[in-house]
Amino acid sequence: MPAAAQIPLSMLLVFAAAKLLAELFERLGQPAIVGEILAGVLLGPQVLGWMTPGDSLRILSDLGVMFLLFRVGLEVKASELMKVGGTALVVATAGVILPFFAGWGICTLWGQPRIESIFTGAAMVATSVGITAHVLASRGLLDLRASRVILAAAVVDDVLGLIVLALVSGMAKGGVNYLDTALTAALALGFTVFVARFGTRAARQVLPRMHAALRIAEGEFALAMTLLFALSLLAVFAGVAAIIGAFLAGMALSESAGTRLHDLTDGVAELLTPFFLVGIGLHFDVRAFAGGGTLLLALVLLAAAVLSKFIGCGAGALGMGRTDAIRVGVGMVPRGEVGMVVAQIGLNLGVLPNSVYGTIVFLSVATTLIAPPLLKLAFRAPTQLERDVIESG
Amino acid sequence: MPAAAQIPLSMLLVFAAAKLLAELFERLGQPAIVGEILAGVLLGPQVLGWMTPGDSLRILSDLGVMFLLFRVGLEVKASELMKVGGTALVVATAGVILPFFAGWGICTLWGQPRIESIFTGAAMVATSVGITAHVLASRGLLDLRASRVILAAAVVDDVLGLIVLALVSGMAKGGVNYLDTALTAALALGFTVFVARFGTRAARQVLPRMHAALRIAEGEFALAMTLLFALSLLAVFAGVAAIIGAFLAGMALSESAGTRLHDLTDGVAELLTPFFLVGIGLHFDVRAFAGGGTLLLALVLLAAAVLSKFIGCGAGALGMGRTDAIRVGVGMVPRGEVGMVVAQIGLNLGVLPNSVYGTIVFLSVATTLIAPPLLKLAFRAPTQLERDVIESG
Repeated sequence: MPAAAQIPLSMLLVFAAAKLLAELFERLGQPAIVGEILAGVLLGPQVLGWMTPGDSLRILSDLGVMFLLFRVGLEVKASELMKVGGTALVVATAGVILPFFAGWGICTLWGQPRIESIFTGAAMVATSVGITAHVLASRGLLDLRASRVILAAAVVDDVLGLIVLALVSGMAKGGVNYLDTALTAALALGFTVFVARFGTRAARQVLPRMHAALRIAEGEFALAMTLLFALSLLAVFAGVAAIIGAFLAGMALSESAGTRLHDLTDGVAELLTPFFLVGIGLHFDVRAFAGGGTLLLALVLLAAAVLSKFIGCGAGALGMGRTDAIRVGVGMVPRGEVGMVVAQIGLNLGVLPNSVYGTIVFLSVATTLIAPPLLKLAFRAPTQLERDVIESG
Repeated sequence: MPAAAQIPLSMLLVFAAAKLLAELFERLGQPAIVGEILAGVLLGPQVLGWMTPGDSLRILSDLGVMFLLFRVGLEVKASELMKVGGTALVVATAGVILPFFAGWGICTLWGQPRIESIFTGAAMVATSVGITAHVLASRGLLDLRASRVILAAAVVDDVLGLIVLALVSGMAKGGVNYLDTALTAALALGFTVFVARFGTRAARQVLPRMHAALRIAEGEFALAMTLLFALSLLAVFAGVAAIIGAFLAGMALSESAGTRLHDLTDGVAELLTPFFLVGIGLHFDVRAFAGGGTLLLALVLLAAAVLSKFIGCGAGALGMGRTDAIRVGVGMVPRGEVGMVVAQIGLNLGVLPNSVYGTIVFLSVATTLIAPPLLKLAFRAPTQLERDVIESG
C-alpha cells in the first residue's frame, strides 16, 4: 500500500465505521454514541484488529474530546453553572468517596495487593464528562438543571480526582507529600474557579474589541481557538485535564460567541468527535484477563463502578427531587478516557500489572457504553418542575 | 513539562504564530498566507528551533491541505473546469517541459551528476495548487477565467508530474518500464477525468436521497466526509495525490452542497490550513547548503523555477490575452509541498544527496513565498473581458 494512502484510509475507516454504526443504533432506537464507540471495538484488537490505540490518529482523538468540551462550554453560561456549585460539590464528593472505597474494598477482599487495590479505587473515581455532555448536547438537554449539575460536578470531580491521584501516586512512590498535594489541589481549584468566575466577563470585554481591530478573515474564530488552546495548556499546568480548560474556554465565550463561531466550531467537532469515541472503543480488549478469575473480578468491579457512582452522586443530588437525582447519578457513571489515564499512570509507575491495567480499561469502556442508554431513560420522564413549566406554558 | 501539555502547546504555538503573522502581513498590505508560511520558518530549525517538520502535527498538516482543496472544490463547478480543459492541458504541458529542462540543464552545466540533475528537473515540474487556490479563494477570485485555468492546469500538472516522476524514478532504479508508466498514467488520467466528468451528476442524484434517508445528525456532512476520504484514498491508488481526490470530492458536491456543509467545512479548513502553511515553512533550512557554491546554485535554480513556470504556463495561456496569461503564469509558480514530495522520493531512492534534497526543499518553500505577492499584483489589473463586464454593468 502506498504510504500516502495511510491517512485517507485511516480517516475513512474511523469516520465511516463510526457513522455507519451510529446510523444503525439510531434506527434501533439506541444512542448513536454507543454505536460510534462500538465502531472502535469493531476496528480494534478485539474484533477485526485493523487498528490499535495510540497510532497516528491519537492526536485527532485528543483534539476531538477537546472540541467536544469546547462546544458544550459554548452552550453553558458560567453564571448558571456557579448557581448549582454547592449541589455539584456535594454530588462530586459523594461520587468520589463511594466508588473509591468500593473499588479498594472489593480488590482487597479479592486478595489483591494493597497498592493495586488503592489504584483501582482511584480509577473508579474518574468521570468522563465528555460522554455525558455529548449525549445531553446532542439531545438539546444542556439547559436542564440536572444537566448543569452534572457538568459542574464533573469539573469538580476532575479536581478531586487529581487530589486522589496525587495521594495514591505518593503512596506508590513510598510516601505522600501532603504539602505538595495541598498546593497542587489549591492551584487546580484556584485556576478552575477563577476562570469560571471571571472568564466570561473578561472575554466579553476584551474579545469583541480585539475582533474589531483584527484585519484577518475569521478573526473571531482565530481568537477563540487561541483562547481554547491557551486555556487547555494552562489547565494542564494547573494540574487539571486539558479538556477542563477547553470547557472553561467555551464557557467564557458562551455569552459573546456569534453564530459564525458556533458554525465553525460545529464543523471541527463533527469531524473529530468520532475519533474520540472510536478511540475509546479501540481500547476494549477482554484478552487482558484471559484467566477466568480476573474476568469475574472485572465484572464485579463493573457492577460496583456503576452502582457506587449512581448511589453516591444520586444521594448527593437528592435535594433536587428523585427524578433529577437519578439523572445526575446516571450522568456521572461513564469513566471514559479519564479512567484510562489513571490506569496509564499506574502502569507507568510500575505499580499496576497488565491484568489490572486491562481491568481498569475494561471498566472505563464498559461504563461508557452503559451510560448513554440509561441517560436516555433517565431524561425521558419530566421532573415536577418541568411539568409545572409545561402546564403553565 | 507534563506529557498532556504537548498537544495544546503545539496547537497554540502553530495556530497563534500563524494568525499573528497573518495579521501583521495584512497590516503591511502583504498576503496573509506569506505570514503563515513565515510563522513556520520562524518556529522551525532555521530560526527558533521550537518545532521540526515531521512531528506529531504532520497529520494535521496533511489534513489541512486536503480540506483546503476540498473547500476550493466546493466553490468550483466541474462543467466550468471542463470548459477550459484544452487551455489547461496546453498550460500544464508547457509548464512541465520548460521547468524540467531548465532544472536539468542548469544542474548539468553546474557539473552535477546526471541522475541528480534529472531529479532536480522533475521537482521543478511540481505545482502546489493549494497555495494559489488559497490565495484566489480568500480573495473571492475563484470565478475568474484565469483562476479556473490555473485550477484545471494544476490538476493536469499533477498527472503529468506523476508521469515525469515515474520516468525519472525508473531511470534511477536502472531502467524505465514504459508499459508500466503508460498504464500508471492512463489510470491516473482515467480516474481524474472520470470523477470530474461524472462525479457531480452522481453526487447530485445519489447524495440527497441518502441524506434524506439518514437518521443521524449532520447527515450531509457525514456523507461529504465519507466521499472526501474515499476519493482521496482512491486518488492515491490511482497514482495521483490525495489532495486531487479531495478537490474532486469538493467539486462533485459543488452543485448540491447546502449552506450547512459549507459552514462546517469552513470550520475544519480554518482550523487546519495554518498547520499546512506552517508545515511548509518548517522545512525552510538554508543550513542544507552551508557551502557557498550550493547556495548560489540554489538561487540560480530559484530564478529558473520562477521564470520557467511563468514563461511556460504564461505562453500556454497567451490565447486568453496578456493579463490572463500573466495571471496563469504567476499562479503556477508555487511548488509547495508537491516539490518536497518529489525530493523526498529521490532521498528515499538514495539518488539525491542531502544537499540536493535541501536545495529542492528551499526551492519549494521559496517559490511558495514569492507567488502570493505576485498573484496579488497580477489580479489587480482587470482584463479586457472584465472591463467590458464592468462597463456594461
